[in-house]
Amino acid sequence: MEGDPTLCLRVFDLNCWAIRYLSKRRQERVRLIGDTLRQEGFDLVLLQEVWSERDYSDLKAKLGGCYPFSHYFRSGVIGSGLCVFSRFPILDTLLYQYSLNGYPYMLQHGDWFCGKSVGLVLAWGGHNHFAPRSCQLHAEYCREKDAYLPHRLVQAWELAQFIRHTSKAADVVLLGGDLNMHPEDVGIRLLRGWTGLRDAFAEATRFEGCEDGCTLVPNNCFTVKTELLPFPLGIRIDYILYKAISSFTVKCEELKTTTGTAPGMDIPFSDHEAVMATLHIRRQGQAVGDNLGTAEPTLADVVTEARTEVGVGLRAAQRQRYSTGRMAVLALLLLLLQAVAALGALAGLAAGQPFPKLSFSLLAFLAIGILLLATGLHLFHTMEVKMLQGTEEQMRMALRALQEHL
Amino acid sequence: MEGDPTLCLRVFDLNCWAIRYLSKRRQERVRLIGDTLRQEGFDLVLLQEVWSERDYSDLKAKLGGCYPFSHYFRSGVIGSGLCVFSRFPILDTLLYQYSLNGYPYMLQHGDWFCGKSVGLVLAWGGHNHFAPRSCQLHAEYCREKDAYLPHRLVQAWELAQFIRHTSKAADVVLLGGDLNMHPEDVGIRLLRGWTGLRDAFAEATRFEGCEDGCTLVPNNCFTVKTELLPFPLGIRIDYILYKAISSFTVKCEELKTTTGTAPGMDIPFSDHEAVMATLHIRRQGQAVGDNLGTAEPTLADVVTEARTEVGVGLRAAQRQRYSTGRMAVLALLLLLLQAVAALGALAGLAAGQPFPKLSFSLLAFLAIGILLLATGLHLFHTMEVKMLQGTEEQMRMALRALQEHL
Repeated sequence: MEGDPTLCLRVFDLNCWAIRYLSKRRQERVRLIGDTLRQEGFDLVLLQEVWSERDYSDLKAKLGGCYPFSHYFRSGVIGSGLCVFSRFPILDTLLYQYSLNGYPYMLQHGDWFCGKSVGLVLAWGGHNHFAPRSCQLHAEYCREKDAYLPHRLVQAWELAQFIRHTSKAADVVLLGGDLNMHPEDVGIRLLRGWTGLRDAFAEATRFEGCEDGCTLVPNNCFTVKTELLPFPLGIRIDYILYKAISSFTVKCEELKTTTGTAPGMDIPFSDHEAVMATLHIRRQGQAVGDNLGTAEPTLADVVTEARTEVGVGLRAAQRQRYSTGRMAVLALLLLLLQAVAALGALAGLAAGQPFPKLSFSLLAFLAIGILLLATGLHLFHTMEVKMLQGTEEQMRMALRALQEHL
Repeated sequence: MEGDPTLCLRVFDLNCWAIRYLSKRRQERVRLIGDTLRQEGFDLVLLQEVWSERDYSDLKAKLGGCYPFSHYFRSGVIGSGLCVFSRFPILDTLLYQYSLNGYPYMLQHGDWFCGKSVGLVLAWGGHNHFAPRSCQLHAEYCREKDAYLPHRLVQAWELAQFIRHTSKAADVVLLGGDLNMHPEDVGIRLLRGWTGLRDAFAEATRFEGCEDGCTLVPNNCFTVKTELLPFPLGIRIDYILYKAISSFTVKCEELKTTTGTAPGMDIPFSDHEAVMATLHIRRQGQAVGDNLGTAEPTLADVVTEARTEVGVGLRAAQRQRYSTGRMAVLALLLLLLQAVAALGALAGLAAGQPFPKLSFSLLAFLAIGILLLATGLHLFHTMEVKMLQGTEEQMRMALRALQEHL
């Protein structure tokens, strides 16, 4: 950065809500997003919920001039929905898919099918290595009784661990995404505390946009108003987080959000608001150590809180594993019983009237169906238990390290 | 490393073949492995196929004195089977589960259920950060017609990418594991070329053990002799690979393998031979750049070869996705037809004899079964296609970068 001590980096983040056949006015909105990105000329664009590869291709074709580099991350059945557009050359990419992401049988929520992940690109621009990541975590469908909290906490922990282990190659680490967590939630405190990432909204010198930086607001025509009833201003669940590694400092000069409608338009980009940050990156005289984000005693409390919630999830998963296993065994017993009865009837041992064939066959098919389903679910919950145990164990290790440090 | 310019690091790697109820003389062998590790006092022990947590706990209890730090990686239905024992404090861990790992319906092979992964620990010892990883890739069941080659190549690529992105925090990177690839296979050339890892066997000053460093040998009483018929000396599929980052150099002074039986015993540790390396780590005057392992034109050829194989796998997966999708549609049509016929019969529209109830119900159940199965498989192959496409795309990016560099 000789002769140019400060680099100004403009970052755009948006959950695009571009689900084919389901999202309202999708194509129009994707065109609008593309037009705006072309006009505004950001340095890095981090998008989520671009589920259709066709939408990505359209955006890529439109944005090729100002963002010559881009990457689309594929995963899951539907995809990860994540993509990155960059003014700087993308040197490398890496996708990390969370080990837990809801349940395949919760079809109405559908998170499981998305293969939710964090996508990292390593970009080189203005004499700096940037490691921007686009990510999305499991949605929260009911805040009062959030059945997905343990999964979201496992994701937050894996995201934090992924960031810690893959950040050393860059001067500036960036995370943009729909974290599906309110700023005071344990998951976001864990993520920020364990990685040292700073929240652009909290750090910004100037802010312009929705009150409290909310990104899901009632005056966006696409949001479900009833879900936001307890939050008259809306909620903040989309973030730009950052930190500097090695001998750099980063400062957020300005943060903006859209406010229900896109600038100069009559419809919003999405049901989420876009977040736009202007970061100033400056080289420092001496190297800065890689610090944790929160004072260590507080961080230990956060990790303990998260671990307790993961433990609650673990016990629920163990119960599910047990009950699905029991159901599989019962179905198997029923099948065996039927097989014995059928063999008995064939051998002429059965006294009196044989079973009616139709009910007998229907019962056998039902038992086979339940056996297959229960076995599948049992395998699924076994994996869930394994991953929750693994995370709990890792958190225990982290706590021990923190306590030893104190 | 003041006052001690060279650190000597002794590493042990073994695929333990410790599958509950299936592996022969498992408990006896696990005891033997524990006893030997305690006597020998290595610095780092990288184990695979420790499928039972009970075996891990037994080893941990036995080895607590000489290896106070250890980690067991949980994943998949059965587990990852990976664990690490260390004389040095383990600071942090990270598990990366490969996105593809065989097929759930290939029950006789069972790799899918194992959640094959690479487990990284970050250890601090003798003034150095070590990043040892234990890993296992999908097994090769038929070398002539290797249906799993594309999956193993995706795993090798993901492993290489994982190593590239997570290596910056350590002075010395180590990889030990059962890679299920012969030294000349494209996957191992890709892994070594793309990461710059060096093969301890090829680099060792002294070697002692099975000829050609083989780790699956005919004179091990647990190996399947017919599988080794084309290879009279055996095959080398277990490796210790290493490289130095920052201002260090690593040299492999000695490499040993067991030779069918464990030293001083009458049975082997496992059906695989153990690999033991003595590495000398020395601080250099100046920092060494992070180099690729192979000259770039050759590396481009290797990536191209791997990409071709991934492409073959992709087309096979696309065919599978299509045929399972078609089967699901046919089953759905049959069900609809039956529903129409049943409604017709109920409304008294059907002329003549109604269908026999039993065959009608059996047919309906069969159609439902096929529909569910075909839908499940269709979803699975859709994910497979996504991941193969993603890897192909990443390899394309890598090739472009290599070609631009040339």
